[in-house]
Amino acid sequence: MSEALKIGSTVGILGGGQLGRMLSVAASRLGYKTHIFEPGANPPAGQVADQVTTASYEDEAALVAFANAVDVITYEFENIPTSALDILEAHRDIRPNREALRVSQDRIIEKNFLSGLGLKVAPFAAVNSAADLDKAIETIGTPSILKTCRFGYDGKGQARLNSSGDAANAWADMADAPSVLEGFVNFSHEVSVIAARGPSGEVACYDPGENVHVGGILSTTTVPAKLSAGMRMDAVLMASKILNELDYIGVMGVELFVTAEGLIVNEVAPRVHNSGHWTQNGCAVDQFEQHIRAVVGLPLGDGKRHSDVVMENLIGDDMDRVPDLLVESHVAVHLYGKEEVKAGRKMGHINRVSPDSK
Amino acid sequence: MSEALKIGSTVGILGGGQLGRMLSVAASRLGYKTHIFEPGANPPAGQVADQVTTASYEDEAALVAFANAVDVITYEFENIPTSALDILEAHRDIRPNREALRVSQDRIIEKNFLSGLGLKVAPFAAVNSAADLDKAIETIGTPSILKTCRFGYDGKGQARLNSSGDAANAWADMADAPSVLEGFVNFSHEVSVIAARGPSGEVACYDPGENVHVGGILSTTTVPAKLSAGMRMDAVLMASKILNELDYIGVMGVELFVTAEGLIVNEVAPRVHNSGHWTQNGCAVDQFEQHIRAVVGLPLGDGKRHSDVVMENLIGDDMDRVPDLLVESHVAVHLYGKEEVKAGRKMGHINRVSPDSK
Repeated sequence: MSEALKIGSTVGILGGGQLGRMLSVAASRLGYKTHIFEPGANPPAGQVADQVTTASYEDEAALVAFANAVDVITYEFENIPTSALDILEAHRDIRPNREALRVSQDRIIEKNFLSGLGLKVAPFAAVNSAADLDKAIETIGTPSILKTCRFGYDGKGQARLNSSGDAANAWADMADAPSVLEGFVNFSHEVSVIAARGPSGEVACYDPGENVHVGGILSTTTVPAKLSAGMRMDAVLMASKILNELDYIGVMGVELFVTAEGLIVNEVAPRVHNSGHWTQNGCAVDQFEQHIRAVVGLPLGDGKRHSDVVMENLIGDDMDRVPDLLVESHVAVHLYGKEEVKAGRKMGHINRVSPDSK
Repeated sequence: MSEALKIGSTVGILGGGQLGRMLSVAASRLGYKTHIFEPGANPPAGQVADQVTTASYEDEAALVAFANAVDVITYEFENIPTSALDILEAHRDIRPNREALRVSQDRIIEKNFLSGLGLKVAPFAAVNSAADLDKAIETIGTPSILKTCRFGYDGKGQARLNSSGDAANAWADMADAPSVLEGFVNFSHEVSVIAARGPSGEVACYDPGENVHVGGILSTTTVPAKLSAGMRMDAVLMASKILNELDYIGVMGVELFVTAEGLIVNEVAPRVHNSGHWTQNGCAVDQFEQHIRAVVGLPLGDGKRHSDVVMENLIGDDMDRVPDLLVESHVAVHLYGKEEVKAGRKMGHINRVSPDSK
């Protein structure tokens, strides 16, 4: 696949959640169709997709049929079983590539990769037993955070250690999963760069956003972020370095801690990212369209921001606020079409656009 | 239907073109599903809808099944056969209502309605024969325009008379369809107001846009329009008057000629309107979402504009410009997923956002 896919082609998307949903809408703006592959019934993305396959990642026949029905494959989450990727990749290109998935699926591989690029990460040590953890605490110290190497998201699979006395409980929380102890980073705030890279190697980054988490879940992203001009440049250069090294195609979210000594990479996500939702109302080309452009081989948009924006997630009972939010000036409401409201569940988000920001 | 439809409900949309497509995307942002009814195969709207019914407006069983599968019905075009509306309305509310359709489907009924409200329209006379036309020319004069009363769009079903010598050819162009001769209005430019009204009677209008047509087809809409503060207020009041009189629910496009003597109503469209596409990138709540809000009974957004925008239609071979447009700063490209490029066919549009406009 060397040139852009013809308009009217179909982008296959693994995962039918809100990211797949917004990717599907963005694809439609460019004249492309989408086909969602999702094990769960009635996926939110299916409501705005041309086709939906409801099947398990173990269903080889369904995977092959899906791959043959689409022109390129992308995904909305990084924890796709390797066996499924092997089957899919035999039939169609997967963008971003397998290496990006391999690196981002495991926290230790990720940290080693980033360190290898000369980027700063928090001090860390692998933990595969209670004894490992005791030893890790000796070098990393406390406070620190124990995290499962894989499958963590929105603060899940994490336990904080305030002292070595917390070790036993923390290790029990990991349920014997391979884990990593991360040293505490004394950061003032977190920012993230939403970066995109196309097949020809061009890179475009959005203005970094400043993230606030509550209970381990992203609560707000604000652009512009509090960031010196130098750090702003560093952030973009760091993201570009990661994308280039991976020969990456698509959008990546790069989370960075801002410290007195510079930026430290927290983690990367090889997909569109919650902290990039502000681009829907702050830029002519949002992160979802940018990802689709990269995946189908169209030139990237330049990612310039036309407005200041505060993105706020609507989580669980925040849905009760929707009636008020609908009538607030310059507020764009984005709901995900999820049937059931659950505590901690991302139900939607809003973008507050500042019209007088320039 | 007195309160808002529950999130997750389904909006039925008659018509599967680009307007239905963008309505469907807007519905998804609010957590609603859509079901498209369209006689033509592979409608653009179907690519981003939850369900599609491909059937004729004469297919009573299909109409009944569609009505029963949705929670409310709206439409993207005004020329829906009355018989189909009768069947649908027996099962579900149609919004905007039948009266709005009746008035806007026929140019003479429309002009009489508008005049009855005290609004200025171009001088006009009904023409049902060559003799009628000769008589009409005596009172209306030339230059003037002969138009079919029904089914005209994008300049189709129109013939210009520069002198009475053009009468025979003009009448021949109408192919015996009931027609209307409209007197020439000496206007400096055309503006349109995209206005919305909810079930409780609340009205919200977008800032008027300035329209430029080429060959009878809308080419560009620019906001803000060249318009005095007084005329801006007049435009909004006129639109509100029309909506209130019709007990209207939804978005309406109201085209106005700007003359030295004030605003003259050209025509109204009981639906989202091409001249309102700029709202997608100029407002937090665009015309498509505003229409869905009204139709499902959610409160209207306030319609405030956060940016200056120039909307430009991509017609036929304009598609060749897409590669260049994709890389222009602050340009949002919206393509409609139509399979075949034809001369005069609306293939997409762009919104050029001015970031330094405030």
